[in-house]
Amino acid sequence: MRLRKVKNALEKLQDNPKYFINNPKDYKGKWKGLFGNNNELNIEIGSGKGKFITSLAKENPNINYIGIEKYDSVLLRCNELALEDDIPNLKLILMDAANIMEYFDIAEVDAIYLNFSDPWPKTCHAKRRLTSPLFLQKYKEILTTSGEIRQKTDNRNLFEYSLETFNNNDWKLSDISLDLHNDNRYEDNITTEFEEKWSKLGPIYRLVAKK
Amino acid sequence: MRLRKVKNALEKLQDNPKYFINNPKDYKGKWKGLFGNNNELNIEIGSGKGKFITSLAKENPNINYIGIEKYDSVLLRCNELALEDDIPNLKLILMDAANIMEYFDIAEVDAIYLNFSDPWPKTCHAKRRLTSPLFLQKYKEILTTSGEIRQKTDNRNLFEYSLETFNNNDWKLSDISLDLHNDNRYEDNITTEFEEKWSKLGPIYRLVAKK
Repeated sequence: MRLRKVKNALEKLQDNPKYFINNPKDYKGKWKGLFGNNNELNIEIGSGKGKFITSLAKENPNINYIGIEKYDSVLLRCNELALEDDIPNLKLILMDAANIMEYFDIAEVDAIYLNFSDPWPKTCHAKRRLTSPLFLQKYKEILTTSGEIRQKTDNRNLFEYSLETFNNNDWKLSDISLDLHNDNRYEDNITTEFEEKWSKLGPIYRLVAKK
Repeated sequence: MRLRKVKNALEKLQDNPKYFINNPKDYKGKWKGLFGNNNELNIEIGSGKGKFITSLAKENPNINYIGIEKYDSVLLRCNELALEDDIPNLKLILMDAANIMEYFDIAEVDAIYLNFSDPWPKTCHAKRRLTSPLFLQKYKEILTTSGEIRQKTDNRNLFEYSLETFNNNDWKLSDISLDLHNDNRYEDNITTEFEEKWSKLGPIYRLVAKK
């Protein structure tokens, strides 16, 4: 998600360290220690303005969450939303997903959320999609044995691509929905800002992929 | 597909043996001999009124096709359509797909078409779906090493189920389309009667699954 650039966004994040972690690489392999408990760790890659990750963290106080965002101006918005509440099981980091293995250790993460990721529609940019084989290989390393990826998107082509890459790289698919908002199996779905806006225009797709 | 029952449908089929094979089990392992050539063999399970299989057979004279139907009244309609043309690479058989291994030998079939199969929506009937694990195991046996299944349906739940059963039973998915009629990759799509009628009401789903 891209937003209007906010001046000094990184400095503003650093000034509010309640959720924002300024030195996230230092916590590789040590995230549970930072949270001070042994609860499972779920991360969202591309947290956007943060509605999804903050809602989820408030609903599940016994799970630790890390929201990851590439753009500081966007993470600032997410941080501002989190600051409206007291969410001890949430942290936020600024990171490019391509470098994810510098931030999380082997088998350190229990679940990865990919919500409305950039579809990178051109074939020549397919490698940048967050479900390209190279990314899936990295996720496989940082996920626990029973770990899983939970993906949602409104982008048909990205979802078709993702179904194929997960399948072709030996992930086990489940909980596939081709119209999440008209699917009575998933009435507990927590929406993102993007999802609320776009779900009226077409189906929202969803899958779970296990190692 | 169910149609109004036609009186003496089987007898009428037997009276027109140009396409209809009355003793199909006798050809198990010998279908190429019946066609008199060494071309690849494609079958459609559930040919309905036959628009798809007859069109495909006319377009591809160098592939042998067998249309399979469970109901004699329906196969009669398919047979009547075929009789309007001269299609030497087409045969029709009356058969319940559950018994498919009595009709085709190991590695005898190059491709299986499943078009708009009965969705059997109730969970207690899931085993009857043509993409249930039991059916997939049978297809795996009769398909050649490079053989594949080509599925189309308008039924969202059947397609969600099929994506998962193919994936969970180690089939390799490709050519997934979640809106075939709005997908410029597949402009050569041959439609069925059912597809023409229902595609205006919602998306047509499509996949290819390889062993």
